[in-house]
Amino acid sequence: MKPDKIGDADFANYFCTYGYLYHQKDMLEDQQRMTAYHDAVRLNPALFRGKTVLDVGTGSGILAIWAAQCGARKVYAVEATYMATHAKKLVEANGLGDVVTIIQSTVEEVELPEQVDVIISEWMGYFLLRESMFDSVIVARDRWLKPGGAMFPSHATMSIAPIRTGVNSQKHAEYEDSCRGWDEFVDDTKDHYGVDMSALTETFDAEQREFFLNTSAWVDIHPSQVLGKACVICDWDLHKVTLEDIKNLDVPFELRIHETGASGPSEVGAFAGWFDVSFRGSEANPCENVVDLTTAPDANGATHWGQQAFYLSPGISAADGAHLEGRLEMQRKKENQRLYDVRLTWRQGDGEKINESVGERRNVWHIE
Amino acid sequence: MKPDKIGDADFANYFCTYGYLYHQKDMLEDQQRMTAYHDAVRLNPALFRGKTVLDVGTGSGILAIWAAQCGARKVYAVEATYMATHAKKLVEANGLGDVVTIIQSTVEEVELPEQVDVIISEWMGYFLLRESMFDSVIVARDRWLKPGGAMFPSHATMSIAPIRTGVNSQKHAEYEDSCRGWDEFVDDTKDHYGVDMSALTETFDAEQREFFLNTSAWVDIHPSQVLGKACVICDWDLHKVTLEDIKNLDVPFELRIHETGASGPSEVGAFAGWFDVSFRGSEANPCENVVDLTTAPDANGATHWGQQAFYLSPGISAADGAHLEGRLEMQRKKENQRLYDVRLTWRQGDGEKINESVGERRNVWHIE
Repeated sequence: MKPDKIGDADFANYFCTYGYLYHQKDMLEDQQRMTAYHDAVRLNPALFRGKTVLDVGTGSGILAIWAAQCGARKVYAVEATYMATHAKKLVEANGLGDVVTIIQSTVEEVELPEQVDVIISEWMGYFLLRESMFDSVIVARDRWLKPGGAMFPSHATMSIAPIRTGVNSQKHAEYEDSCRGWDEFVDDTKDHYGVDMSALTETFDAEQREFFLNTSAWVDIHPSQVLGKACVICDWDLHKVTLEDIKNLDVPFELRIHETGASGPSEVGAFAGWFDVSFRGSEANPCENVVDLTTAPDANGATHWGQQAFYLSPGISAADGAHLEGRLEMQRKKENQRLYDVRLTWRQGDGEKINESVGERRNVWHIE
Repeated sequence: MKPDKIGDADFANYFCTYGYLYHQKDMLEDQQRMTAYHDAVRLNPALFRGKTVLDVGTGSGILAIWAAQCGARKVYAVEATYMATHAKKLVEANGLGDVVTIIQSTVEEVELPEQVDVIISEWMGYFLLRESMFDSVIVARDRWLKPGGAMFPSHATMSIAPIRTGVNSQKHAEYEDSCRGWDEFVDDTKDHYGVDMSALTETFDAEQREFFLNTSAWVDIHPSQVLGKACVICDWDLHKVTLEDIKNLDVPFELRIHETGASGPSEVGAFAGWFDVSFRGSEANPCENVVDLTTAPDANGATHWGQQAFYLSPGISAADGAHLEGRLEMQRKKENQRLYDVRLTWRQGDGEKINESVGERRNVWHIE
């Protein structure tokens, strides 16, 4: 795709999803998400009463409505998609048309009559950064938040952990099946239609490898699958983080495998990644009641974000107590700034029970 | 979406699919498709030997290779996507690099050094017209086909027929379930989060109605499901058809329900639509061996095109021998010229055994 096409394709592909009520309903039915934002607002009335608020990407308008119900003087709710029309209807039906102003615009292009005391936004994507909406929130903060104003949420972290899973072997089997299918196809095409397709075998292999082995997946991991304490790889204060900080990541991690399976050493079948956010207010305007929202593995089931699994093929056979030391790099894809490549590089550290030759491994996954 | 965004979104959404070998393999494994095109070329060598050929949207390059294998002097194979690179590799691996020239371009923008004797293309989409690639073939013909030259395929028809199916009731049940789910969601959101979402109930209903009841579906119909002789609604000679002819359709149809179920009158649960093409050559250069490719219901299973089902909710309860008379309109969607809305309007005709009050019904479906 030519670079100058990216902006428009982005509009078509990204924003259009958010124009469907069905999709909004999915998010509005995520009780952990809803309860956290609702509590963050209603348990901290001092930060909203008589204040001005900006809601970035308001969607159906629910965060703006809560802010208004909590006594905000004025709420500016910005939404790029046609969903803005529905949000307006909802605001009026809830009797808040005089407090909440819905503006159909990107937040980068919006003009507000004043700066605000609070910016609230539900901007998080898979593994926090996917969708790159974080950028828009930072841009909004730099333009529209008053000095001392509070970001909702105020903090965000990204974590990874080693997990047990059989899916990595399954993915590898599917990849091999697909390659065998291609080989049969090459034979058939030669026999029946007189064309030798084998010149494309390598290309097909690469394409399938990317699809089956180098694409991360949405998962709902049970805590019992987690084989070691999670490592927090990023920890950001939303009042201070810059566009530069989140543009491309290159961060170290260290993991210890703690759980040995019944029959021999545990196998790490994947790394899992997730995020947490919390609502603490700003230094000048701290929350009376801090609220946290985690998307970590949970026995009661995942939020709609789930976790992202980065499958390993083969897995890492690591003894109890083994160390993994490495680096996570995360780069935006050239052809779509809202998607990312995640590169993990690791080696077994200097723990006592290393049962693999010490060597560096690395793998790259696409978050789709 | 703003109108000026359409072109680029189209490029991102439409052409990118065809850049994957996996997708090409799907098409190359469709034996009915492959055999028809292969036979059309190899059984009509007089039309290819020593001739010049243009392949519109060559994909992996296979049609161009066959034309070259059949003795074409020169084949120009045009492909808009990155697949052109793979096609070039394939052509060279098959020793035809001196005959086949792969050109990465849209056919609208391509410049060839000469006019051609034959234009070959596999351009057909679901229900023939979806994807609107037919347009590109007509443009190519008007610019690059010599007088008397031959189009491969040379003719195309579209057909519809009444069919028996239980899926229409199932879709209706799913639609009703979804609406009930919304009502519960409205109650929960009011109770737990203090927001009344009922203002959006009508919008949600319309969205779900469109999704479940007004979207056609890919189906593989067994011939025993067909309740009456198909009606050919369009019959085009590719040497003569114009862009105007295919832009928007408004054509009459007449159907007779011929099969009575064991227990009472047959119910027409859907209209099904499909297409046929044939390879007859041109008047000046007719094929020695005419080849046909049909996508009609087949006991041995469908081509990759399947058929399109336009589900009826409720179905039409029609006695044996009952007539349906009506009109099919097909219009491109404003927001995406490659997709269509199909509108069917019908009434029971003057057959002897009418068991419904005579009234007009109409419905619109999106072909996605």
